[in-house]
Amino acid sequence: MNKLTINHELLISRAIEARERAYAAYSKYKVGAAVLTEDGRIFTGCNVENAVYPLTLCAERVAIFKAVSEGATQITAMAVATANGGTPCGSCRQVMREFGDPSMPVYIADVRGNYRETTLGGLLPDSFSVKDLSAE
Amino acid sequence: MNKLTINHELLISRAIEARERAYAAYSKYKVGAAVLTEDGRIFTGCNVENAVYPLTLCAERVAIFKAVSEGATQITAMAVATANGGTPCGSCRQVMREFGDPSMPVYIADVRGNYRETTLGGLLPDSFSVKDLSAE
Amino acid sequence: MNKLTINHELLISRAIEARERAYAAYSKYKVGAAVLTEDGRIFTGCNVENAVYPLTLCAERVAIFKAVSEGATQITAMAVATANGGTPCGSCRQVMREFGDPSMPVYIADVRGNYRETTLGGLLPDSFSVKDLSAE
Amino acid sequence: MNKLTINHELLISRAIEARERAYAAYSKYKVGAAVLTEDGRIFTGCNVENAVYPLTLCAERVAIFKAVSEGATQITAMAVATANGGTPCGSCRQVMREFGDPSMPVYIADVRGNYRETTLGGLLPDSFSVKDLSAE
Repeated sequence: MNKLTINHELLISRAIEARERAYAAYSKYKVGAAVLTEDGRIFTGCNVENAVYPLTLCAERVAIFKAVSEGATQITAMAVATANGGTPCGSCRQVMREFGDPSMPVYIADVRGNYRETTLGGLLPDSFSVKDLSAE
Repeated sequence: MNKLTINHELLISRAIEARERAYAAYSKYKVGAAVLTEDGRIFTGCNVENAVYPLTLCAERVAIFKAVSEGATQITAMAVATANGGTPCGSCRQVMREFGDPSMPVYIADVRGNYRETTLGGLLPDSFSVKDLSAE
Repeated sequence: MNKLTINHELLISRAIEARERAYAAYSKYKVGAAVLTEDGRIFTGCNVENAVYPLTLCAERVAIFKAVSEGATQITAMAVATANGGTPCGSCRQVMREFGDPSMPVYIADVRGNYRETTLGGLLPDSFSVKDLSAE
Repeated sequence: MNKLTINHELLISRAIEARERAYAAYSKYKVGAAVLTEDGRIFTGCNVENAVYPLTLCAERVAIFKAVSEGATQITAMAVATANGGTPCGSCRQVMREFGDPSMPVYIADVRGNYRETTLGGLLPDSFSVKDLSAE
């Protein structure tokens, strides 16, 4: 899928909608995400927290894991929505890297729909990836 | 939902099917899971690994996070399927605990459909939960 | 090391002391832990939280990872201390299982020194372990 | 602590030594790390893996959690050592961010002592941090 064909406004609106389902019982910080897969499907996610904080999962990863579990093997764009336009955490950037290229666009939005565009490579430069692991 | 109404054979077969989508690039250990939610829906998951091993997610959690992200708030039964009938890990047991009661049935199956039944409380006795956290 | 030789009161007091160093900026739930290794050393840990909740680590795991990073290969007893005698989470139980036997004693204490004794097998029955993984 | 006062060769050599203790039973990819804290102490770590892959912890985080559990509150430099000069994963970058400034130097080395220098901000630009969380 060519970057030009990405309907990023749709992706962002889906992330904003998904945020409404956040289970943010502990942080109260609700996050929504939407991922576009190479085969043109969109999967959404929200953060799902846990009384045991390390077992919390971020919205971006929920969306990506959902996509992979439904047969997607490559992701081509991602949108994330929060109250204040917060960026994806380092863990989510790394999970995007497993399934996406550094040139993949990432849209960072707030709940009113204001957004800016960056890339995975811009968020996780000089990334560790499978090729490093196999170099052992 | 009453336990008697659980179609556990359907749940197990969905877990076995979901296992086919596992992204087990590193361990080669494929796992599938299916969760029944209080509103009668079934969500499935598979394990999704990562070159950075800690960022891997287990099948059971993929299924549960998917359910929560689609509006479920309570889970009532879970099935997990592996080649050899392996049990859920401690992390997955804890995530089940966030959304399920100790009496919740858990079906542990192999890929040929052999299974045994236990409960969440049987897998995670004396569990930490939100009531402990708020007792501080 | 024989179980009879475990000075569990020392282990518990070290866990209570370690709790003072907890970085519990988000949950405010402070936890301390102490682990006895097969070679007779004690390592302590506290929970270390993160603004990105999934990157938090529990006290028990901090203690165990510290022990392994200092050359320990087997753990023989564990103590955990909280305000209210909360139990270890499922993730910590699973990490104990990587380095300890199901018969390993676990002491669950509150900050006043009240405690009860259980075992790893009592906390994580029917556990997943390396032998399951290699059965694929 | 001023950046000029960092003995980065010592830090790198400690990371290389720590790598020897890696418990890399599953990936076989051994990693060592060393962190310098604001009060001038050095703490080391290695990766500690688990049959349940998500419960693995990276060397950098073992070193940082060890430091915090021993009373450190701020980190000022980090070194990581692998066979091939692999970079820290996104999760470790985020944990560094909890306790370090973007200007913090990070030394990425191989086991022969070849290294290059970058900064935390260079590895995790536009990072999510506690100020985003509290903006909700």
